[in-house]
Order: sequence, then C-alpha cells, then structure tokens
Amino acid sequence: MDPMAIVERQAQRTDSRILYLILDGLGDLPRPGDGATPLSAARRPNLNRLAAEGCCGRFDPVGPGITPGSGPGHLGLFGYDPTEIEIGRGVLSAVGIDFPLQRGDVAARFNFCTLDAAGRVVDRRAGRPSTEENRRLVALLRRIAPPPGVEIFVETESEHRGVLILRGPGLSPHVADTDPQAVGVPPLPVTATHPQGEGTARLVAAFVAQALAALGGEPKANGLLLRGFDSLPTIPAMSERFALRPVCIATYPMYRGLARLVGMDMAPPPASLADYPAAVAASASGHDFVFAHVKYTDKAGEDGDFEKKRAVIEEVDRLLPDLLAVGFDVVVVAADHSTPVALAAHSWHPVPALVWAPGRVFRDSVSEFSEQACVAGALGRLPLRYLISEALAAAGKIAKFGA
Amino acid sequence: MDPMAIVERQAQRTDSRILYLILDGLGDLPRPGDGATPLSAARRPNLNRLAAEGCCGRFDPVGPGITPGSGPGHLGLFGYDPTEIEIGRGVLSAVGIDFPLQRGDVAARFNFCTLDAAGRVVDRRAGRPSTEENRRLVALLRRIAPPPGVEIFVETESEHRGVLILRGPGLSPHVADTDPQAVGVPPLPVTATHPQGEGTARLVAAFVAQALAALGGEPKANGLLLRGFDSLPTIPAMSERFALRPVCIATYPMYRGLARLVGMDMAPPPASLADYPAAVAASASGHDFVFAHVKYTDKAGEDGDFEKKRAVIEEVDRLLPDLLAVGFDVVVVAADHSTPVALAAHSWHPVPALVWAPGRVFRDSVSEFSEQACVAGALGRLPLRYLISEALAAAGKIAKFGA
Repeated sequence: MDPMAIVERQAQRTDSRILYLILDGLGDLPRPGDGATPLSAARRPNLNRLAAEGCCGRFDPVGPGITPGSGPGHLGLFGYDPTEIEIGRGVLSAVGIDFPLQRGDVAARFNFCTLDAAGRVVDRRAGRPSTEENRRLVALLRRIAPPPGVEIFVETESEHRGVLILRGPGLSPHVADTDPQAVGVPPLPVTATHPQGEGTARLVAAFVAQALAALGGEPKANGLLLRGFDSLPTIPAMSERFALRPVCIATYPMYRGLARLVGMDMAPPPASLADYPAAVAASASGHDFVFAHVKYTDKAGEDGDFEKKRAVIEEVDRLLPDLLAVGFDVVVVAADHSTPVALAAHSWHPVPALVWAPGRVFRDSVSEFSEQACVAGALGRLPLRYLISEALAAAGKIAKFGA
Repeated sequence: MDPMAIVERQAQRTDSRILYLILDGLGDLPRPGDGATPLSAARRPNLNRLAAEGCCGRFDPVGPGITPGSGPGHLGLFGYDPTEIEIGRGVLSAVGIDFPLQRGDVAARFNFCTLDAAGRVVDRRAGRPSTEENRRLVALLRRIAPPPGVEIFVETESEHRGVLILRGPGLSPHVADTDPQAVGVPPLPVTATHPQGEGTARLVAAFVAQALAALGGEPKANGLLLRGFDSLPTIPAMSERFALRPVCIATYPMYRGLARLVGMDMAPPPASLADYPAAVAASASGHDFVFAHVKYTDKAGEDGDFEKKRAVIEEVDRLLPDLLAVGFDVVVVAADHSTPVALAAHSWHPVPALVWAPGRVFRDSVSEFSEQACVAGALGRLPLRYLISEALAAAGKIAKFGA
C-alpha cells in the first residue's frame, strides 16, 4: 500500500502552519563552463539560510525520466499520485481560464484552424490570431443555438486557443480528438471512444457542423480542431485527506484552478511578486497550509533566459523575510518540475526542495540552496508526492502509526 | 509488484549467518550547537570499523513522514510491509506480557478508570494505580465466571493497564472501543463494528457488566475502558518467506512477542546487556539469523536523555567484539525507528543502518557510524523492509532471478 494511505489515516489537525512556496520550473541544469544554475548563481542569502537550517533533497514529480505538465507536477506537490489521476487538457484549459466547471460538464480544448476548399487543414493555428481577434470569433460561435436540455459554452483562452464546454444530463467525456495533428488532411470526424460517448459525440458533431457554417466567411479561422475531451476528475480534497485548511495564492488562473481541484480556498491573486507577503499575511489566519505559487521562474526557463530566471529567484529571496514574518512553523521551498534554460521547456530532472522547521527536521550538511547542494541532502531523492508528508510530519500533523 | 515477492521466490538456505543487531529508537537529530547526536557523540570504535568496512544508508520504517509504533517498525525490519499488516493494540499488549495468544483468540487492552455516580468517566487512568494494586484488581475480575464454551483471561500489564483475552469458537475481533478518550462522558456501550462481531460484543458486554459489579466497592478503579480488539494476524513466517532459521534475543516481552508473530525461535532473555554475547553464542548454532534487540537506546530517547542514550551505545560498542567472535558472515546494525532525545518520542526520521559483509557489500566512503555520515552511504534512502534484502543478498541467500 502506498504510505500516503497511512499519512491520510493518521493526519491530524493542529494549529501549526505550513508555507508551501513553489517556484514553478525552478530546477535547472548546470551550464557549461562554470556549472552554475540560475538558482546557484542567484544572490539568495535567505534561501541559503533556510537550506542550512533545514533539510534538503530532490524530488521526482512523476517518476525518473518523466517530464510533467503543470497538472501532474502540482498533483505531486499536493500529495497526489499523478499516475493515478489524470486531468484532461480540456479540464485544465477550463480551470485555467477560471471557468466555473461543474461535475458532469465535458470540456475540450480547441484551436481555430485554416481549412482549404477541399476541407483539408492548411494551418493548425489559423495564422495565430490575436486574443482580441479570438474573442470576435468566439462571439460568432456563441450564437449557435444549443440543442434542448444542453448548455454550450465557448470561451477564449488566448490567440488561436479556446475551450468548448458542454453541460447537461448524461454527457460523457469519451469523445476522440478531431485534431489530426497534421496539415494536408481534413479534421478527424467526431467519434466516441466508448459506447457511452456516442450521444455526446453526436452533440459535438452537430456543434462542429454549425461552427463551420458560422465561420464560413472567415479568411483564416474557418475551422475548429478539438482535443482533450474530459470531465472534472473526482479528487478527494486536501482537507479530507490531510485534515488541512489550505489556501492558494497564485497569479495565474491555471494554478488557482489546479488548487481548486484539490479543494483549496482561494485568496485574491496578488498583482505582482512584491504583493505576495501581504497576500500571504491576509490569508494565513484561518488556514494552516499556504500554497504560494510563483510562475515567473518557469516563464524565464521557457524563454531560455538564465539572467531573467536568476533575477526572479533573487526577487523571491528578498521577499522571504516578509513572508516568514507572517509566522510559519514549517517552510517548504520547492518546484512542480524543472524548466532548464538550456532546454527552454519542462524537463524530467528532479526538483530541488528544502524543508525548514527548527528542531523538527534533520539538519543536514547542506549549507546553500541549489540543485547541486541538494544532491547531498538528507531527504535524498523521493517521489514528489512525499514532500508534503515531510512537511506535515515536521508540523506535527501526522499521528503515530500503530502501537 | 513489490520486489520483496522476488526476494521470497529466490530465497535459498545457506550456512552463512546473519547478526541483526537492533538498537531500538537509535536514530536521532543533530542537537543545536555542535550538531552531535547520541550516536555521533559516542565512543564507538567497533561500530565505526563496521561502518568503514561495510555499507551504510538510511531507512524509512513505514514511509516518509510516518512515525511508527514498535509493531510497524519491527515488521519493516523483518522484511514485511507495515502498511499491509496491522497488529492491534490488544494483540501487541498480549504478546507484550508473554501471554500465549492462540489463533482465534480476541484480545483487547483495558484501562482501569474512575466513574462518578452517574457513570461518567472522571479519570481515564483511575489515579494511576501501582502495578501491585493492578494485580489485586485483576484478581477480582478473574472471579467472574465465563459463559459456557468460552475462556476469559484477565491479565495485568502495568499500572492502570491490563489485557482481556477471550478464547472460544467463533469469536470475532470486530468489536468497537468502549474508551471514549474523554472525561465527563460515560464509557461507550459495547458494540460490534461488523455483523460478524455481534456475538463477541454480547460476551464482552456481559463481562463488562459483571466487572462493574465486581469493582463496585473500589474508590478509584470502579470502571473499565476497552480498546484495540484484535486477533493474531496471519503473517507468513520468516522461515517460509526467506528460508531462514531465525532466533530472537530480547529482554522485553513485546519484542519477543513481535518476533514470535513472524515465527522466530526464542532464546532465553539475557539478564542485561553484558549477557548478550553469551546469549548470541548459545543460540547461534541451529540458526542463521540472529535478531538481537536492545531496548535501552529507545528508553533513553523517550526520557530525552542524551547522555544516557550515548552511554547505551557505548556499552553496545564495547560488546561488539564478543558478539562478532561468535562468527557471522553478515552483520547489520540498525533500528526500528528514531527516538530523538529532543522530541522524547518516536519520530518519522529515517534510521541509520550499516551492513557489514567483507567482500560482499559495496564499501562506500562512510568511515563512521552516525546519522550524518549515513546520508552519504551507498545504501541511500530506502523503505526499511528492504534492509533484510541487503542482508540476505550479502549472505548469499537470494538466488539469481531470471535467466
């Protein structure tokens, strides 16, 4: 049995408070020459102090060699096994735009695309329209009348991307992608992947036919490609599993959406990094688990921008004293996945993490916070879902197991 | 599949002999200031030599963040998954007083308690009677006549604690605790937690009614609170799983009881630590796995006594040459869990361990035996149940798997 089942069973409510500070995509690779990473190169006296006083290690978001998307990475951080829970692209897009998805809704991601006269895809992104232009196109699709008993929502995500949501009784997510992932061929017909999905597939097929008619006059965005049909997964809330009262502080809708999927309360999104300490202070009372998500490290990694990533880490480091002043018994600094600047993309490398809790964690020999230093940390290398167990234990939130 | 299933399948009997020396609660936390632990501060030339010549690492008794009781900790040491096998409080108490529990018996732990005139609990421990006083009270309960076909045993554990054992056909452990875990409320009625337990619940209810009558004249211990109803779990013996002939050397009944649960032979308990080498020598012939359990490290940890814990470790170290002189191919020194003096309680921190087997284990760079040094050990950080696999392999007791 996964030890997390025991953690759940022994979880107990206490007044102790955990700060779970997540620097998205923090993990990186040593660059050629000086072997520095954005983290190791950053001026980071406060992170180094926490690492020196605490316990460090490295964590695999899903498993060795597996590069996670944001969904699996955060599920791991929140103590869920990302191999057991899948969050479809459609659901992730819907929660990512703050759409109030309900149980039983079926959501799919779509691209506007360009079709030629024979109905073959010539541009899978319709020439990358602006988000403004996307809104105009979405307004055309919103005029389509839904069949009786069904609600249809068409939402702008950004540029060529949107989300289609169906709401009604008896819907099923067992519908195949229509995106052929290639040009020169027509979109795939709407088909069910399971007999349960046949009714929903017919509804989607009718919508697509009407959408093609509605977009018929468009020079570029005259087609739709759908993928990632899914419904809200049934995920037990963190409050039930770990007896926690968790709250989310995040600027990006997708991370608020992921936190909402595991039942976190929502704090208003801070306007900028500088506003995080005030946001944490405002939400700490009434909550014993504060998930604070910083997106900008990942963005810099995706851009391949070493200096930008370093600068974000330095800014977070400067904010740390104000964050700690709010009063936490346990502080975790970690990441959902690595985004090495050399790869300019998510990667499979374990993420560095520190757990600080004076007198409660094993103070190892690590004296600075970096990917290299964490290799020698006493937490070792663990699946990411166990990071929360280490934090809960340090906070006294897991009762003794067995006599 | 858990690799332990392969270990079982490939286990083979050999003449090689393993000493499994367990220092209960050995693991500790570096203290503020010098960062010493009782182990690292101890004069321990023999332990250091074994660590230097052998291979070190750290082991999680149950899983990251989980603090184990003695049961789960020892199950892990013996190669069992403690998340799969539960040993109820009643069974642990019964084996802990050397009661010869039989398959099908139902055992429960009880407290003498004080009830007020309205039948509400006013002291869950009846003013903590002496163990002597406990024996007098137990004698009163032993006069209660059991119903036909059932045997009832009432046994003193210590102070306010005792054990109730029912023996007879068709008994079931599916009976709920009557301990309300609170004062100001009456004990809970005896109820079944499953239809199978209804008959047994009626027997227990009748016993409790008679016990209240028998204790009616007592000023303090006029009530009983029962918890942890359980029967002997079905645990495959170590001899079957690992083709071993194991023997247990332990001074405390609970550890002998745990060893008996996994089918170990029993050596007479040594009178003191100094008698361990003679006890090991006497029991080594005819056995190829000698489990030697030292309780005093845990006791010192529970007392928060750094110097005492260090002294016990030093005493064990002085005994090591005599223990090794008995002749072992593999020596393991480890613990069932950590009991840091700073916490004065069991904890979730991984335990340090060494495996010594000249020419058979990877001689890593660790040159002393301590929690800190073990972080760099080549065994890494593993679930505790795999420690026995390392020992069995070093002893040549696991045949090659697959062609």
